Amino acid sequence: MKVAFQGEHGAYSEQAAYIFFENPSIKGVPCMYFSDVINKVEEGEAVYGILPAENTIHGAVGEVYDFLLRTKLKICGELKMRIEHCLIAKEGVKLENVERVFSHPQALGQCREFIEKHELQVIPSHDTAGSVMMLKEENGKTAAIASERAAKIYNMKVLLKGIETIEENYTRFLIIFKEDSPYTGNDKTSISFQTKHTPGALYKILGEFAKRNLNLTYIHSRPVAEHPWVYRMFIDFEGHKEEERVQEAFYSAGQDMLYMKVLGSYPRCD
Amino acid sequence: MKVAFQGEHGAYSEQAAYIFFENPSIKGVPCMYFSDVINKVEEGEAVYGILPAENTIHGAVGEVYDFLLRTKLKICGELKMRIEHCLIAKEGVKLENVERVFSHPQALGQCREFIEKHELQVIPSHDTAGSVMMLKEENGKTAAIASERAAKIYNMKVLLKGIETIEENYTRFLIIFKEDSPYTGNDKTSISFQTKHTPGALYKILGEFAKRNLNLTYIHSRPVAEHPWVYRMFIDFEGHKEEERVQEAFYSAGQDMLYMKVLGSYPRCD
Repeated sequence: MKVAFQGEHGAYSEQAAYIFFENPSIKGVPCMYFSDVINKVEEGEAVYGILPAENTIHGAVGEVYDFLLRTKLKICGELKMRIEHCLIAKEGVKLENVERVFSHPQALGQCREFIEKHELQVIPSHDTAGSVMMLKEENGKTAAIASERAAKIYNMKVLLKGIETIEENYTRFLIIFKEDSPYTGNDKTSISFQTKHTPGALYKILGEFAKRNLNLTYIHSRPVAEHPWVYRMFIDFEGHKEEERVQEAFYSAGQDMLYMKVLGSYPRCD
Repeated sequence: MKVAFQGEHGAYSEQAAYIFFENPSIKGVPCMYFSDVINKVEEGEAVYGILPAENTIHGAVGEVYDFLLRTKLKICGELKMRIEHCLIAKEGVKLENVERVFSHPQALGQCREFIEKHELQVIPSHDTAGSVMMLKEENGKTAAIASERAAKIYNMKVLLKGIETIEENYTRFLIIFKEDSPYTGNDKTSISFQTKHTPGALYKILGEFAKRNLNLTYIHSRPVAEHPWVYRMFIDFEGHKEEERVQEAFYSAGQDMLYMKVLGSYPRCD
């Protein structure tokens, strides 16, 4: 079973897919961009896709939400995974000789204290696992920041584990599929909408969910690129779109929305 | 009058400072990180600081909001500026010979169509103006993406202007100072808060603003890094903190907040 993910083999997203499906026989399909992940599932080259939605330090991955709006694919599941960064180098390289380090800018940012303490030169790259792959063409003064799994895949050595500044570093991943998931009783629904240009519209919309005990678990906004200073809201709440109270909330809240899109209902990851 | 900004001379932030102060004799103080901008104003090495708050394509600059929470400085003004990217190279370099391009990852992303059409190799760098500065050590096959102003400052040539994919590309900048601005009648206030862990808390908070006609102009959320899956809300609304209706809204909304911080009241930029 093929699962498309962004990055090279060994990326955190690929690791998350193995955990979500609890199946070592799935096959990760590496993609250069988030949009390629969606394209590969839409075109049937992969059955599922996995995308990072938010990180507990950096917040929402805005681009991913922009793409979710434009696809017919649905969110069918979610996974929360601890991110543990390792300093990785070729066999024989010693920590005291490392002078520069490759990684994705976000991983570099998450390890800034470590990097400053060791006075390393940072070189941004497209993804964490890809930066490990690049090590084979480098000299003994270069390291990369990525997962332990990426080190194994490319036959590199982990010099140090857990070099992130804030240990409590988690990413929530969304699994995308041609349809969302059936009702389980412990579900979440993700929607996106644009409010009408009337005062208090967002307040009234949230009220329709609040009064039906549909607890909000996440709310964030994204700009509408074609219309400067106009925003879309993204909301996750506890409940399934097949429930009557959810459908009632959609109907009533819809009076204050320009449009709404259901991104999917899926079992909650606790 | 010194104004601290992130990036090298010629950065979009520096350009925004010149426009905001309508004063060609201000002196831009370049800073490596956003946090340095705040530090320099706190320590009196600069009178004002300027920080990008949001972009109409990419959304909020989350890191900037995280820093605004931790400082005693206030937002005293805002400016919306159109971002127009140029392809810049050494004198004598021709477009058809350019093979690779330096710039900040966000600028590279905003020019992706152009880059793909011309099959350029992208090399991420820390800031747009800094990538122009680096050109002097490069050969005739390298270009940078930055502002026209950056090209002038480093004596480089603009090969092409307006290479961004979406033309309507604006950034809103915040000006920070030791205090915020007095009431003008056309003001905005930025606050941050965390809701109590009770159902409908956000709904009730927004209600206190809505019923006093304090129109929301922006709402976004950011994770609380130390507490995974907990969020802070950031809200901008039309009104000044010296107005009675604003103070009443703060008081009533405060019943559903764990804490609140006023980031500043300042004249609205339309």
